[in-house]
Amino acid sequence: MPIQTFKAVSNQVEGLTVDNKTRNFSMVMDEPPSLGGTDKGMTPVEALLCALGSCQCVVGAAFAKQFEIELKGIWAEIEGDLDPDGFLRGLPGVPVGFKEVRIYLHIKADIDEEKKMAFANFIEERCPVGKTMSLPTTVKLAEVILEK
Amino acid sequence: MPIQTFKAVSNQVEGLTVDNKTRNFSMVMDEPPSLGGTDKGMTPVEALLCALGSCQCVVGAAFAKQFEIELKGIWAEIEGDLDPDGFLRGLPGVPVGFKEVRIYLHIKADIDEEKKMAFANFIEERCPVGKTMSLPTTVKLAEVILEK
Repeated sequence: MPIQTFKAVSNQVEGLTVDNKTRNFSMVMDEPPSLGGTDKGMTPVEALLCALGSCQCVVGAAFAKQFEIELKGIWAEIEGDLDPDGFLRGLPGVPVGFKEVRIYLHIKADIDEEKKMAFANFIEERCPVGKTMSLPTTVKLAEVILEK
Repeated sequence: MPIQTFKAVSNQVEGLTVDNKTRNFSMVMDEPPSLGGTDKGMTPVEALLCALGSCQCVVGAAFAKQFEIELKGIWAEIEGDLDPDGFLRGLPGVPVGFKEVRIYLHIKADIDEEKKMAFANFIEERCPVGKTMSLPTTVKLAEVILEK
């Protein structure tokens, strides 16, 4: 199968409010007042956690049949630890991104413990968002365009 | 400053449609029909690209003053290459996550080329979503809960 290129455009509306578009979808992100925003939407790091949780659920739902699992439901609680000294102050040795992200995966199905773990581990291995986060990924500043 | 823990919950509604909640915000993600979904929202990988673009804009907007830049606007076009042979088929040697992500950053301000690049490089260095993607990040399957 050919490589697929996904696209998105993020555009500062005002202050820290950003409008995001991808295909025919859009969503607003912002920061809470404590970080200088106006709380018009979730923050980018919260959106990242939602993307991870969603991706886990999608992979689970898409591959349950292959595991002969009749999935009655799947949900993920995601937690991510961020040290503000990294992104706000740039302190050396402090990560700018998430220090640790934890997934609490809930699987509703009539299966045993062994199959549960095999399925959960498969989901972890096949989750594009999770792998983009856990493995080093090339994120290239391809071009900086000065607009007058 | 203390470490902050961000939280999100993603819950499969039906098929590949997932409802996501974080604080008082929610958003639906889905897959297009070509991947077995019903296209009720952007995909998790598209949401990831939106989070990255938003994060770039927020960092730029938040730190422009520190660079003595009067920012008239900032936007980011994001592209990400994904090889379906990774997540769909698990082919060895094929990355499951993004192979490459490119940022085209637009800065609207009355500055010279040198300052533009210094500012763009700073944004890259201080962007939590970008760093979570580009550097290896601990993403831990903390618990798998079997629901009956």
